[in-house]
Amino acid sequence: MSNEKETKLGIEAKKEVDFSAWYTQVLLRAEMMDYSDISGCYILRPWSYKIWKEIQAFLGQRFEAAGVEDSYFPLFISQGALQKEKDHVEGFAPEVAWVTRSGSSELPEPIAVRPTSETIMYPAYAKWINSHRDLPLKMNQWCNVVRWEFKHPQPFLRSREFLWQEGHTCFLTKSEADQDVLQALESYRAVYEDLLAVPMIKGMKSEKERFAGALYTTTVEGFIPSVGRGIQGGTSHCLGQNFSKMFKIGVEGKDGETEYVWQNSWGFTTRSIGVMVMTHSDNSGLVLPPRVASIQVVIVPVGITAKTSAEDEEKIQAKCTELANALIAAGIRAKADLRANITPGWKFNHWELKGVPVRFEVGPKELTSNQTRACIRYSGEKRQVSLDNIGQVAKALLDEIHGGMFAKAKTAYDACIKIVEKWEDVTPALDNKCCVLIPWCEDSTCEDQIKDRSAVKATDDAAVDSRAPAMGAKSLCIPFDQPAKCTEKFCVQCGKPAKSYTLFGRSY
Amino acid sequence: MSNEKETKLGIEAKKEVDFSAWYTQVLLRAEMMDYSDISGCYILRPWSYKIWKEIQAFLGQRFEAAGVEDSYFPLFISQGALQKEKDHVEGFAPEVAWVTRSGSSELPEPIAVRPTSETIMYPAYAKWINSHRDLPLKMNQWCNVVRWEFKHPQPFLRSREFLWQEGHTCFLTKSEADQDVLQALESYRAVYEDLLAVPMIKGMKSEKERFAGALYTTTVEGFIPSVGRGIQGGTSHCLGQNFSKMFKIGVEGKDGETEYVWQNSWGFTTRSIGVMVMTHSDNSGLVLPPRVASIQVVIVPVGITAKTSAEDEEKIQAKCTELANALIAAGIRAKADLRANITPGWKFNHWELKGVPVRFEVGPKELTSNQTRACIRYSGEKRQVSLDNIGQVAKALLDEIHGGMFAKAKTAYDACIKIVEKWEDVTPALDNKCCVLIPWCEDSTCEDQIKDRSAVKATDDAAVDSRAPAMGAKSLCIPFDQPAKCTEKFCVQCGKPAKSYTLFGRSY
Repeated sequence: MSNEKETKLGIEAKKEVDFSAWYTQVLLRAEMMDYSDISGCYILRPWSYKIWKEIQAFLGQRFEAAGVEDSYFPLFISQGALQKEKDHVEGFAPEVAWVTRSGSSELPEPIAVRPTSETIMYPAYAKWINSHRDLPLKMNQWCNVVRWEFKHPQPFLRSREFLWQEGHTCFLTKSEADQDVLQALESYRAVYEDLLAVPMIKGMKSEKERFAGALYTTTVEGFIPSVGRGIQGGTSHCLGQNFSKMFKIGVEGKDGETEYVWQNSWGFTTRSIGVMVMTHSDNSGLVLPPRVASIQVVIVPVGITAKTSAEDEEKIQAKCTELANALIAAGIRAKADLRANITPGWKFNHWELKGVPVRFEVGPKELTSNQTRACIRYSGEKRQVSLDNIGQVAKALLDEIHGGMFAKAKTAYDACIKIVEKWEDVTPALDNKCCVLIPWCEDSTCEDQIKDRSAVKATDDAAVDSRAPAMGAKSLCIPFDQPAKCTEKFCVQCGKPAKSYTLFGRSY
Repeated sequence: MSNEKETKLGIEAKKEVDFSAWYTQVLLRAEMMDYSDISGCYILRPWSYKIWKEIQAFLGQRFEAAGVEDSYFPLFISQGALQKEKDHVEGFAPEVAWVTRSGSSELPEPIAVRPTSETIMYPAYAKWINSHRDLPLKMNQWCNVVRWEFKHPQPFLRSREFLWQEGHTCFLTKSEADQDVLQALESYRAVYEDLLAVPMIKGMKSEKERFAGALYTTTVEGFIPSVGRGIQGGTSHCLGQNFSKMFKIGVEGKDGETEYVWQNSWGFTTRSIGVMVMTHSDNSGLVLPPRVASIQVVIVPVGITAKTSAEDEEKIQAKCTELANALIAAGIRAKADLRANITPGWKFNHWELKGVPVRFEVGPKELTSNQTRACIRYSGEKRQVSLDNIGQVAKALLDEIHGGMFAKAKTAYDACIKIVEKWEDVTPALDNKCCVLIPWCEDSTCEDQIKDRSAVKATDDAAVDSRAPAMGAKSLCIPFDQPAKCTEKFCVQCGKPAKSYTLFGRSY
């Protein structure tokens, strides 16, 4: 073990002081990602890619149950196809990467790298859908997409290439499409809450925030209390008939007229891993929710001193291996860290930095006590655990940890949601790292004005964190679960009757 | 059911007459793939993508057992990194797609779309590998790559974008690297033979045919008897220390000198699906090997006539569903095709075209006989099968079909391998749609001359297929399993002492 490595262990930046530096340090030192020499493109190392594989398995199962089939469409889009739906191309044009050359030859026409695949898939859908029997059509693909943004890139959260799944479905009726939108959204909520232990709020995007070319967009919205910013977790769009009319996707209806299909698209990205890291991790490093951790339980031999007999040392090591095997047999991803010449303390730090949910310690005492000491990463709690039926016990412990992590994160999120009914209270709440649920008329002009007005600090009070961004608040979503009826309420901005309580906040 | 669809069913082109048209028709009509509007880029429809998922699961399990970890590296390579290993860049430069523009802005420097990821991954490896403890390092990624070839594109076999996995491993010693090369190659043989029922020959590539930048390349080579052409199935390369020296990937050795690591890379692509289709399919359409078929057993109700009572019809349908459920419970991908208003004959043709390995028929007789009639796609064989313990019986039948398909393909391949020891016999064998195992001196000059000389037809005899390509023969591989000692043999081209029997053939 090199001393150089010892010195690198741990995180110097503090989550509550310099969030952005802390985030980067956690990701780099826990070996979640690394930089490439192309700005905004990151390497997903095995420690994070495993999480993506777990997300794929989780969503894959739900998609299959819903009759969605996996397929793969090309990376490249012709200029003509990309430009077919006007709002859509306007939304994506500024961020499209163009291939113009192969080898040393200019291509006759530039070719776009997909920022999303509506315009690649829908010409094929037009060929494949001819009769009612071809509906519903439900396809999904797992792939990479490229959006050459010029905003400051951040690993996982905003990268120029990212991984995602995109589902693209077609139905005969709007009501089927409406149901499908919500089914996908529910899967996204489930990934966050049931797999990553990250709380989300489901809702509808405002007109201004909806997907380019969509009829409406639904979303799951998260929140990062440390910086007081909202973050979009995943979106599910009803495209209506905008694309089907442009791409001529329809079936013969009564009277021989074409009935255009109702379409949806919905996507979930590697951004989710970033949200997970920001939510749970701490000043000791990464904290992984147990269901996606590459290693769920690490077993470390302890208490071996110069006085320990070689025989006892061997017994401790054997006990560690035996324990690991018992856990593995129960379906738990467990590892015994038996490396020689590394102190237990260094191992503790190492696996804490990497975010392993539970550490079991096995020392001379454990040889006779039929117990192990369990140390829980997210809470720091330590407790004695009986080795009887340890596979089941460990499983229950991992579920308990999942529940505890979710509850902790949910409490923190809930504490940040302020119901505010007059303008004077909006910016102070934002400055206090909260988001606001405000009665709103749902008018885009008001939305712009709220953004402009909230970009100014409410106060110079030194008690307000001076590093909080002087960023305007956007509408995050109109929550499906409204805090109250809005009938007697008035828009905090314009004073006209409010249509809904809408979540506004500074955001990623 | 539209009549239009009835007329589209089936394949007009004949495998033995117009192979290329036949291949395309099989793929399109079995709904394996479709075209996009970018030449050389194809859509993988669910019927083929499922096969890729089975391949991923099969290889994924083997990789995991070998300690290989999945990761994801960016799609884009900087010009500088791509050019670092001289032979490598020369090999790929003519086929690289370049992004030069984002939105409407020119990029300061063009960025390459990965044709393979050595030059993206190895700068990171140089950072990650510092001590002996960091070795071996074994990583894999599943991704898309782009090679903008100008040869005639063919779905699966030669497409400008394709899907693959690429494994990249680093070792302290050459002997560990040598072992790893062979372990990956064995996995590739296993995918073909044990999953796709396609026979392969393992061997070493000649110097001329090896991967750009590699020390040596091993390969699994297939053969398509219908056209008499060899096809490369997958390659596993030892890169030696070429890249590690260029990218400075090393550890501190004795005397403080850097010991550069020994590296391998190995890749397996969606081409395998094309080889599978060409090998097994016939003039009725696709023939799927059972282990990768989306539907392994289709159940079709038969014998329902105008005289059948409604009650009996219902019983037959119920029996079909019951049978499907029993198969599904046994882990078989089964489907009962109960569509109304479609004749059994149309259903037979439909599922034969789609290549489903087994059809079970259930009619009035089967209601009382406790049997079903099984029709086996690849052989056309029909047999009565008892419904007792049908799950296990069907599993055994699927394994039998796998074995039968492999044996049939192996017999056909073996019949095409001619051991030839004098030049006069080379071109006639090639013209006869065979490949030749010839004593060869392993000199590149001879290899070029063999290619030139074999590009000419040996005879104008009308008996020789006049459509066979007048294409020169390349060396396919030096088989690990040599037909005999080569010590007393002489190169068929130059007459100097031969080093090995080498497989030469016209090829894809």
